[in-house]
Amino acid sequence: MSDLLDTIRDLAKKTDSKILMVVLDGIGGLPLELGGDTELATAVTPNLDALAREAQLGQVELVGAGITPGSGPGHLSLFGYDPLHYVVGRGALSAVGIGVKLGAGDVAVRGNFATLGGNRIVDDRRAGRPSDEKNAEIVGRLREAISDIGGTPVEIYTESEHRFVVVFRANGGPALGANLSDVDPQATGVQPMTAVAHDDASQKTADLVNTFVQRAEAALKDEPQVNGVLFRGYSDVPHFPSFDDAYQLRAACIASYPMYKGLASLVGMDVLPVEGHEDALDGKVQALKDNWSKYDFFYFHVKKTDSTGEDGDFPEKVHKIEIFDELLPQLLALNPDVIAIVGDHSTPSKLATHSWHPVPLLIRSNYGRKDAATRYTEDEALKGSLGLRRGTDVMPLLMANALKLNKYGA
Amino acid sequence: MSDLLDTIRDLAKKTDSKILMVVLDGIGGLPLELGGDTELATAVTPNLDALAREAQLGQVELVGAGITPGSGPGHLSLFGYDPLHYVVGRGALSAVGIGVKLGAGDVAVRGNFATLGGNRIVDDRRAGRPSDEKNAEIVGRLREAISDIGGTPVEIYTESEHRFVVVFRANGGPALGANLSDVDPQATGVQPMTAVAHDDASQKTADLVNTFVQRAEAALKDEPQVNGVLFRGYSDVPHFPSFDDAYQLRAACIASYPMYKGLASLVGMDVLPVEGHEDALDGKVQALKDNWSKYDFFYFHVKKTDSTGEDGDFPEKVHKIEIFDELLPQLLALNPDVIAIVGDHSTPSKLATHSWHPVPLLIRSNYGRKDAATRYTEDEALKGSLGLRRGTDVMPLLMANALKLNKYGA
Repeated sequence: MSDLLDTIRDLAKKTDSKILMVVLDGIGGLPLELGGDTELATAVTPNLDALAREAQLGQVELVGAGITPGSGPGHLSLFGYDPLHYVVGRGALSAVGIGVKLGAGDVAVRGNFATLGGNRIVDDRRAGRPSDEKNAEIVGRLREAISDIGGTPVEIYTESEHRFVVVFRANGGPALGANLSDVDPQATGVQPMTAVAHDDASQKTADLVNTFVQRAEAALKDEPQVNGVLFRGYSDVPHFPSFDDAYQLRAACIASYPMYKGLASLVGMDVLPVEGHEDALDGKVQALKDNWSKYDFFYFHVKKTDSTGEDGDFPEKVHKIEIFDELLPQLLALNPDVIAIVGDHSTPSKLATHSWHPVPLLIRSNYGRKDAATRYTEDEALKGSLGLRRGTDVMPLLMANALKLNKYGA
Repeated sequence: MSDLLDTIRDLAKKTDSKILMVVLDGIGGLPLELGGDTELATAVTPNLDALAREAQLGQVELVGAGITPGSGPGHLSLFGYDPLHYVVGRGALSAVGIGVKLGAGDVAVRGNFATLGGNRIVDDRRAGRPSDEKNAEIVGRLREAISDIGGTPVEIYTESEHRFVVVFRANGGPALGANLSDVDPQATGVQPMTAVAHDDASQKTADLVNTFVQRAEAALKDEPQVNGVLFRGYSDVPHFPSFDDAYQLRAACIASYPMYKGLASLVGMDVLPVEGHEDALDGKVQALKDNWSKYDFFYFHVKKTDSTGEDGDFPEKVHKIEIFDELLPQLLALNPDVIAIVGDHSTPSKLATHSWHPVPLLIRSNYGRKDAATRYTEDEALKGSLGLRRGTDVMPLLMANALKLNKYGA
């Protein structure tokens, strides 16, 4: 498949214009009752409304029809990387999600704690879903027991509940392969499987994994419930074209949660420090102001619109949208040549989880056509001139509106 | 990549119905001030309005989101050839643009006149941008000096300013290859490079190019400024599936500028003679009437909607739209089974150049649904039933509306 990104890379040119992409995480919603208003339509948003009247609106489907995007694919799509083509492995995504950087030749592995019975039979593939605290305690014991395997540095991290991540570091030696079979049998009543390498480069990784399993079981043999480990999903560092190179941009990420900083860092954006706790909106605005002159592309992430949707808290999601609306004038005061408001997926409170529904897209530049949409809401976006598009169309549209793309062909 | 064109070719059938595709070059526009009217919305177009009320409207993106099409890719897309897949080389496009036909085995080369200093060092890669007249004078001298090289016929043509085109004719002998390195060093302060063949078939072409460079420098040695030639971009004739074969049509082109006649000829349309100067709209209408019985597809090109946009002249672009509106009844009087009004790209006066914005598409046949669009304008097109589409969708839609496509599958 011809990749639009390749074409864009050939056409991109450096200019002084500035692009601000605001990602309101999980912004798309649903009415609680059929025919009612979504969270966006319910929110009182005078600043967004004024911006929408000057802007062009449309809808974006991040991965494909009916497909509910995870945060990784949703963001990659917005950054212009087709998420069906550019896949971040499960292990690497877990590492990114907890803020662990992978280097060339390293392998990240996604692990589950399990309960093993007599003769190493798997009784529970999730070890009774331990608390995060219990997980951290177990990880502490494993770190003491397994700091390296035959000289290869081993790092172990808590993810949540039964989930943890192991990183094997190449440490300057040959690259570790990530092409091997799972330890997780995906069934109870059987033993964990032995990892088998599918190529030469992965033989050492398979040995490391199998040794890790033995030593972990030995270290946890007195634990009644969390006494085994299952591995599923190995990945080396994904090799994506660099964002700065593809678009001829100096790009910065302003986000506060590890997953989003990790994804931005994966494509090569500079991750700017943000002061404050949790969503830290004031700190983010300050980081944007402080660095405005240094970059020509900013990815500005707002998290709480998603978290409140995940909590199934409709009024609170409405409230978080209104809080963003209050800070919007500070973003506009910087006078970006192009500003986009978009989401990485929908998170309707009604579903209390991510969903497949398109998200509204707003683009404001000096080169927009009039359209009939008067608010940044799901139903007004239907009247917009941008139509229903794939998420990978967003970056080309922003680049075009910033006059950063040469003509294709004569 | 699965190509829609292949499927259409399997389904196409010959019928007596007639399709008229009117391409208003660069028709899409922008309001001068955000929220204002575009050129199309400003123009008084009673005939187009009446047609729009009976037709279906939509929007077309010729190449892809955010991508500004050149005339070549824009037209290829309208003709159903995916412009990311069917690429016309720089040399061939230059030849097409000045109305020179390439035959099988010929090679067209894009040249720049340059200024060479002592020891053949490139001082100016554009020879001080000579006038078109000076260019023609130099081309005349080169034609006298180099009518053939070792029996291979050589043709030399003025393009504009420092640009010229050379065609080496295979002349019935083996095909000349086009896979060789550039002469243009793309830098000053160094000598022109020697062309090197990248395959056996291009060895003779490389010899021709290097000999041409020597003989041109000898012929121009008394010129103070235009005394060297640099070559960049070699192409043989592009091998596209024939339009008539793909669609089972007898297709004719009615255009007056070389580029458009060349593109139509490239895909195998008959290019009809048109009386008159410049856009020659009366001559085009006459050619259409005279040939109405002989073909079942007409590509009818209107140029001035683009030229006025390129000039940044909003009122004049509006005026050219109104002039087209006045002649539209003569086209409709021929009673085409299907008429389409579309553009090959947008050329907003505000930008004074091509742009990425979608163009409105109008299709009128006896098999259309009602839609809410009442004018052929960018914002009314948003209300149309055809939606936002790729340019390569236009031909299949016209073929279907002309009942020229069999059912796909049983």
